[in-house]
Amino acid sequence: MNTEKVNKDLEKVRENAPLVHNITNYVVMNSTANALLSLGASPVMAHAVEEVEEMASIASALVLNIGTLSEKWIEAMFKAGKKAKEKGVPVLLDPVGAGATTLRTETAKKIIEDVRPDIIRGNASEILALLKADAKTKGVDSSASSDDAVEIAKELAAAKSCIVSISGKTDYVTNGKSVVAIENGDPIMSKITGTGCTATALAAAFASVNKNYMEAAVGAMIVMGVAGEIARQNAEAPGIFQVKFLDALYQIDEEYISIKARIKV
Amino acid sequence: MNTEKVNKDLEKVRENAPLVHNITNYVVMNSTANALLSLGASPVMAHAVEEVEEMASIASALVLNIGTLSEKWIEAMFKAGKKAKEKGVPVLLDPVGAGATTLRTETAKKIIEDVRPDIIRGNASEILALLKADAKTKGVDSSASSDDAVEIAKELAAAKSCIVSISGKTDYVTNGKSVVAIENGDPIMSKITGTGCTATALAAAFASVNKNYMEAAVGAMIVMGVAGEIARQNAEAPGIFQVKFLDALYQIDEEYISIKARIKV
Amino acid sequence: MNTEKVNKDLEKVRENAPLVHNITNYVVMNSTANALLSLGASPVMAHAVEEVEEMASIASALVLNIGTLSEKWIEAMFKAGKKAKEKGVPVLLDPVGAGATTLRTETAKKIIEDVRPDIIRGNASEILALLKADAKTKGVDSSASSDDAVEIAKELAAAKSCIVSISGKTDYVTNGKSVVAIENGDPIMSKITGTGCTATALAAAFASVNKNYMEAAVGAMIVMGVAGEIARQNAEAPGIFQVKFLDALYQIDEEYISIKARIKV
Repeated sequence: MNTEKVNKDLEKVRENAPLVHNITNYVVMNSTANALLSLGASPVMAHAVEEVEEMASIASALVLNIGTLSEKWIEAMFKAGKKAKEKGVPVLLDPVGAGATTLRTETAKKIIEDVRPDIIRGNASEILALLKADAKTKGVDSSASSDDAVEIAKELAAAKSCIVSISGKTDYVTNGKSVVAIENGDPIMSKITGTGCTATALAAAFASVNKNYMEAAVGAMIVMGVAGEIARQNAEAPGIFQVKFLDALYQIDEEYISIKARIKV
Repeated sequence: MNTEKVNKDLEKVRENAPLVHNITNYVVMNSTANALLSLGASPVMAHAVEEVEEMASIASALVLNIGTLSEKWIEAMFKAGKKAKEKGVPVLLDPVGAGATTLRTETAKKIIEDVRPDIIRGNASEILALLKADAKTKGVDSSASSDDAVEIAKELAAAKSCIVSISGKTDYVTNGKSVVAIENGDPIMSKITGTGCTATALAAAFASVNKNYMEAAVGAMIVMGVAGEIARQNAEAPGIFQVKFLDALYQIDEEYISIKARIKV
Repeated sequence: MNTEKVNKDLEKVRENAPLVHNITNYVVMNSTANALLSLGASPVMAHAVEEVEEMASIASALVLNIGTLSEKWIEAMFKAGKKAKEKGVPVLLDPVGAGATTLRTETAKKIIEDVRPDIIRGNASEILALLKADAKTKGVDSSASSDDAVEIAKELAAAKSCIVSISGKTDYVTNGKSVVAIENGDPIMSKITGTGCTATALAAAFASVNKNYMEAAVGAMIVMGVAGEIARQNAEAPGIFQVKFLDALYQIDEEYISIKARIKV
């Protein structure tokens, strides 16, 4: 794994502007759409049971994000997810708040069983909650360190033949055998709502141009982290940081990535 | 058509702060509300079938935006739309993603038939999809040039006795007979989610103070484009552009408009 | 009432990062979450009837905001509200648009009767509409001055044994007996959507660390107003103001508060 592949994927995203279909939570719809646009992808949000299969079919990747669930949305997620898998469209799951309520934990688990997402990205508490009955999440914020979730992530990835990506101080991406650690980013990123959701959406953009989903997930975390560092250089507080983070996703290039990326296998 | 009328309408919006009722998509609710506030209007978002008729009745304009549809919302759009027409409140349709899924295309067409919106504003693909069965939209992004949609827009406007406004590199507004071309704006505007939705909302604000809806639609596109150019002067990337665009809507005035507007009949 | 208590509460929020559960409107979900994060709290948005009781039970405060109502959401608000009260979790009501439609006015009144919120925060029109049958709200914007609503607010607070907070040019907080006036803030705050909603959310954060809800409500209004003044120093227009306001919530401290707060009992 080196940064050349990340650069190549980023270039492809910018050339092809892949359509990323998001069934995601209300809180982050706007910021996720803008992050995908800044990166170079083409976002669409659609959740009606009547249209999700059709939208997923023309999409290059599908994100299922359970951040603000309700009955109809869950139904739409299963429909869209199954259709995407049938069509070979990569499916990503963001188990927002798994471990905080039964509805979230159970829905996330059921999506994993029935839809078989290609990449699961969450914070440490959320990932732990997918395998450990006693894991607790404080709303949508992690109450565990990403380091503590690596073994469970590996186990989950191996059991479900998927990629698991944990974001935190150090980000970890695993396919169940090897683990890549990414040490980019900045603590202020946790002061902006939807940073994790953005990471999942960017991973979808990368997965739409690279069928090696391990590489795609790693690439997305590197771009997130490096963009966060670029943004932080001229941002003292979360409001301006959020603005500069979008700018950084637009401006990030080969040079930034090769200089700043800090990955370890 | 000259810029004096645009200035007069803008002044009226700022004096009266017209209530613009939006039944719009989740992605852009916040940015649309802020754009309307920056311009000088008073936005309200309300979608419950139990209240939309009452809200539309006290509103000065109504926007129906199909960007994130579902069954109940469609029902609310018809209710609100019909009540608004009954009360003489101008109705605007933004057919977001028409041409991408059957639900969107059919809903947009049905709103046009049953509600009879006064102004329809969309990108080229969306407008094409309203009359041509084979037109395709890439999610919510246009896959056609606005130039290619002018004839269809004219046809649509004539057939439905309404104004059709197409946004793109060049914006076109037509009443079915004449066509006005507006050559303001900047490509970076397509890197921000909801720019088109904002254009529709601003047209609603203008339509609430000027019953000549052709002039209202043209005025809104000029203000959008000129504000985009003002914002772009000091913005290198989409994050800061979005901030400065809101600022520009607040600061735009007679002088900016008369110097920068580029319209052709 | 002095600013020392406000500082102490702010410190506690930053130390404990209380989980604030919001059942709020689509328009402001993102900006409310970011405001809570900038202040130091941990926001979560959850509205499914299947999970709101569980979420409210682990939360430190609950916000019921009726800005974009629908049937299922109303049901969720009652469920969450009752569970929160049962668990001793403070409940805040933001009666957005009460006075504009019957659904909003009636829902707000019913929440007050059945849930018994600890703090109600609204603009003057909204507060008036809760007690006066002829009060009218222009969408979600006030058509009355906060000064005109003080007596009704006092009456409401006394009748329902709760705190009522009115925002406007001068903010007023009352427990039915005494009234505190806060004269901070800036007119540009009304040019940003969701400023009022943010005030309610901040009051929830304060109420989660201070069981004297009068003090909590006053503290939140002081922090809102002072942050608004800090932000305004370097912001000419609403776009950049919104950014700097989030920054100010992050940066506001004892010194800012003690120098700038203008309160009168």
